[in-house]
Amino acid sequence: MWEVALSTGVVPISTEPAELSAAFESALRAFFASRRELIDPVGGDFAAAVRHLEEFVLRGGKRIRPAFAWTGWLGAGGDPAVDPVSASGVLQVCAALELVQACALIHDDIIDSSHTRRGFPTVHVTFADRHTSHGWSGEAAQFGSAAAILLGDLALAWADDMVREAQLDPAAVARLAPVWSAMRTEVLGGQFLDIAGEASGDESVEAALRINRYKTAAYTIERPLHIGALLAGADASLIEAYRTFGTDIGIAFQLRDDLLGVFGDPSITGKPSGDDLREGKRTVLYAVALQCADASAPGAAQRLRDGIGTDLSDTEVDDIRRTLIDLGAVDDVEHRIGTLTARALTALDSSSATPPVKDRLRAMALAATSRNS
Amino acid sequence: MWEVALSTGVVPISTEPAELSAAFESALRAFFASRRELIDPVGGDFAAAVRHLEEFVLRGGKRIRPAFAWTGWLGAGGDPAVDPVSASGVLQVCAALELVQACALIHDDIIDSSHTRRGFPTVHVTFADRHTSHGWSGEAAQFGSAAAILLGDLALAWADDMVREAQLDPAAVARLAPVWSAMRTEVLGGQFLDIAGEASGDESVEAALRINRYKTAAYTIERPLHIGALLAGADASLIEAYRTFGTDIGIAFQLRDDLLGVFGDPSITGKPSGDDLREGKRTVLYAVALQCADASAPGAAQRLRDGIGTDLSDTEVDDIRRTLIDLGAVDDVEHRIGTLTARALTALDSSSATPPVKDRLRAMALAATSRNS
Repeated sequence: MWEVALSTGVVPISTEPAELSAAFESALRAFFASRRELIDPVGGDFAAAVRHLEEFVLRGGKRIRPAFAWTGWLGAGGDPAVDPVSASGVLQVCAALELVQACALIHDDIIDSSHTRRGFPTVHVTFADRHTSHGWSGEAAQFGSAAAILLGDLALAWADDMVREAQLDPAAVARLAPVWSAMRTEVLGGQFLDIAGEASGDESVEAALRINRYKTAAYTIERPLHIGALLAGADASLIEAYRTFGTDIGIAFQLRDDLLGVFGDPSITGKPSGDDLREGKRTVLYAVALQCADASAPGAAQRLRDGIGTDLSDTEVDDIRRTLIDLGAVDDVEHRIGTLTARALTALDSSSATPPVKDRLRAMALAATSRNS
Repeated sequence: MWEVALSTGVVPISTEPAELSAAFESALRAFFASRRELIDPVGGDFAAAVRHLEEFVLRGGKRIRPAFAWTGWLGAGGDPAVDPVSASGVLQVCAALELVQACALIHDDIIDSSHTRRGFPTVHVTFADRHTSHGWSGEAAQFGSAAAILLGDLALAWADDMVREAQLDPAAVARLAPVWSAMRTEVLGGQFLDIAGEASGDESVEAALRINRYKTAAYTIERPLHIGALLAGADASLIEAYRTFGTDIGIAFQLRDDLLGVFGDPSITGKPSGDDLREGKRTVLYAVALQCADASAPGAAQRLRDGIGTDLSDTEVDDIRRTLIDLGAVDDVEHRIGTLTARALTALDSSSATPPVKDRLRAMALAATSRNS
């Protein structure tokens, strides 16, 4: 077990997921504490709203993005035992990814009109409920969205502040800058493609893969690993290997998510079964199924287009599941996951990442692509 | 006339507002051009959406925040003729304030359900219209809000990128960081107080002044001047003078805006007369009027509470105008503007700002507080 000095004290660091998450959460808690001198003078209800943001950030989530960034740093030779000061800064940058993610989730939940997140009411629902319980004037839903827009903005601004205050050495700052920029632009681009594709009814496999690439793969795995590597001063070949690995595993991760969204066991995933079908989510699974059906089974294509995105009964969900299997779409997606995972692991194996980190990334890759929740 | 080297070429700089605005716009245009290598690979409709963001940023606005920041830098001894490289970086930081402002406006327009901005449809309305004209599926209004949330986020993230890429020297970066952080947190705090105050029906003068302080004064004048001063390495006494001047003029600016929102000539302000009354905007003017009425004219208090925030006829607007005058609220607000402006100018006069900049800031202060549009 390593120990890293943080402004809040000393935090144990290892590659154990639970300990790592605790370290990221300590860094986030310290950052929120450091904002009080800015928040308190503003007064009014702002401090209470920020406390809700802090709770939202700290009360759940798998910390997958910081974990990939930190592991990427270790794999490129970063060592908290050798350089605890750098390690502390790196830890802070990794944790800041959770603030970008907080913005993405809070704003996405407004966009999707989602009611729950991580087992709690979403931020916009929480503030709408406060409006109602106080008997305030105006529309509760509009107040909830307004508050959530502003708190998402705050999380995004603070992500940058947290990186800026990480006390990295100037060379590391310079290496990090373009990739930090790219990551934020890419995830917003991916989200935009997602809403535009859903509105325009783009049914192509290519469009669904493109959304996966930018909304999920780049943002969740590729860029976090890239950031970790750059902070450690990795060479171009390791960065290239990480990016191949990250893109492929990131897309495979989303493909697994798509399968679980239709076929997952609700008692394990925590999400009502078939919800992705009722919401009309434009997944690669769905795009492949339509492509197959258009070529060979026009009746099935019609049934899919008529059913998906509507308030399906459980029996209808079962029918669509069978159709997806019969069309070969499930096999196709499983095959894609297998191919992507194999290519990712080949890139990882032949890279210069340290052996323990290769083992760890292999385990993370398999957990992301073979999971059942 | 000075000339400053920018990545796009050479831009003329003077303290003339029109030339300054042109220089900020060149910097913004160059920044947007530099994003293409991130945007184009994302593909789909993202590039078109970003072009709309660029149009939004470039097609209007008084560039008041960058102008105060630039003038603050000049007044603290910044000199483009002596150090054109620093000047170019400072110009870029100043221009980046317009990207923070783009986020604030785009998100505020969603929050307020505003339809027009700078004489054009607001961003969320533009994207809702696109949805309708393409005959896309789902609700046009929801798509419009979603697109505007994401483009506002992008503007906010890019503001930070633009500052980070300004190639300031490391000492200037370190001085800038905490104030850049404070400014973004303060404006979001001020916006939050605004929506919370409107919902809870807070009628106090203190609450209205607090919103002015953070949503307008700090963000529009105080912090931009502060940023300019820090970039020039100003001493503590000049910073203190700038901040007093900026806070007082910023609040006075908003008080003038409040008066114009009720009494302004629509042919000059470009806004329908009485709109602030129909929207139920919680201004200091309104809070002072209620305070006076509650003390001495309960009937008038009732009429104000019943009328403001409703669909008033022109005659009813006229009645409320007369009530505000008769209660002494207009005189009170004019008196506040006068006191704040006098205190601001005293702080400016006794500061170490360069004489030409004192003249310029005095003119900007009077323009901000004595305007009729």
